Amino acid sequence: MPGMDPAELRKRFTDAPVARMATLRADGTPRLVPVTFAVVGERVFVGIDDVKPKSGRRLARLADVDRDPRVALLVDRYAEDWSQLWWVRVDGRATVHEDGPVLAGAATALRAKYPQYARATFTAVVAVEPTAWTGWSARA
Amino acid sequence: MPGMDPAELRKRFTDAPVARMATLRADGTPRLVPVTFAVVGERVFVGIDDVKPKSGRRLARLADVDRDPRVALLVDRYAEDWSQLWWVRVDGRATVHEDGPVLAGAATALRAKYPQYARATFTAVVAVEPTAWTGWSARA
Repeated sequence: MPGMDPAELRKRFTDAPVARMATLRADGTPRLVPVTFAVVGERVFVGIDDVKPKSGRRLARLADVDRDPRVALLVDRYAEDWSQLWWVRVDGRATVHEDGPVLAGAATALRAKYPQYARATFTAVVAVEPTAWTGWSARA
Repeated sequence: MPGMDPAELRKRFTDAPVARMATLRADGTPRLVPVTFAVVGERVFVGIDDVKPKSGRRLARLADVDRDPRVALLVDRYAEDWSQLWWVRVDGRATVHEDGPVLAGAATALRAKYPQYARATFTAVVAVEPTAWTGWSARA
């Protein structure tokens, strides 16, 4: 991981506005979606809100996590100058919270990070416990 | 998929400079990395080159594809104005080509899309045959 110590790697991940999350479908194939998120202590929280238009049914990613907790989250920087490229990945195990203190805490963290969430109601949160942090940077 | 017909969805994916690719590790967990890519006809090509610094060994994503061809690719737009959000996902089956006409054709397409690849040598290409295109846009 050239150029990124563990603290730098966590900072870059934490500060990014968007990550891409992979969950596993029932057939084991990877399901990819972009997500907003907040890092609190050791955990990464992905909120399911009523701000961004969604279909009425429970999101497939929640069913995925209930079935198989193994997820991955990726943050990266793309630039035309490829010496600026970097990425940070979190692999982890996730749980779904549809009420209780974990949901309430995650909602507070998400509202603090994103002004767009000021009036949001969160119907669920995916709480990810990282098992590995991995990073790569083009700049040594 | 509000606001995106199949042609629009393919155009947005094709024109994006970076995608995130998920492959499956031996234990079935998703491995996520950002990738450059080119769309040629029905296929998506991800090149493994000698331009962006890599470790000397064969990339883990190639071993993943050899073991299990099921992959996903995601392109998305993030903006502070959340009415501008959209994403397009390709689910598919991949094969690795380390020589031959598929590698040569992919290299040509990648050099045409990315000037950064002008002097690149490609050591392998992951060729993805899409099985599903999925998209979402915040704008109805």
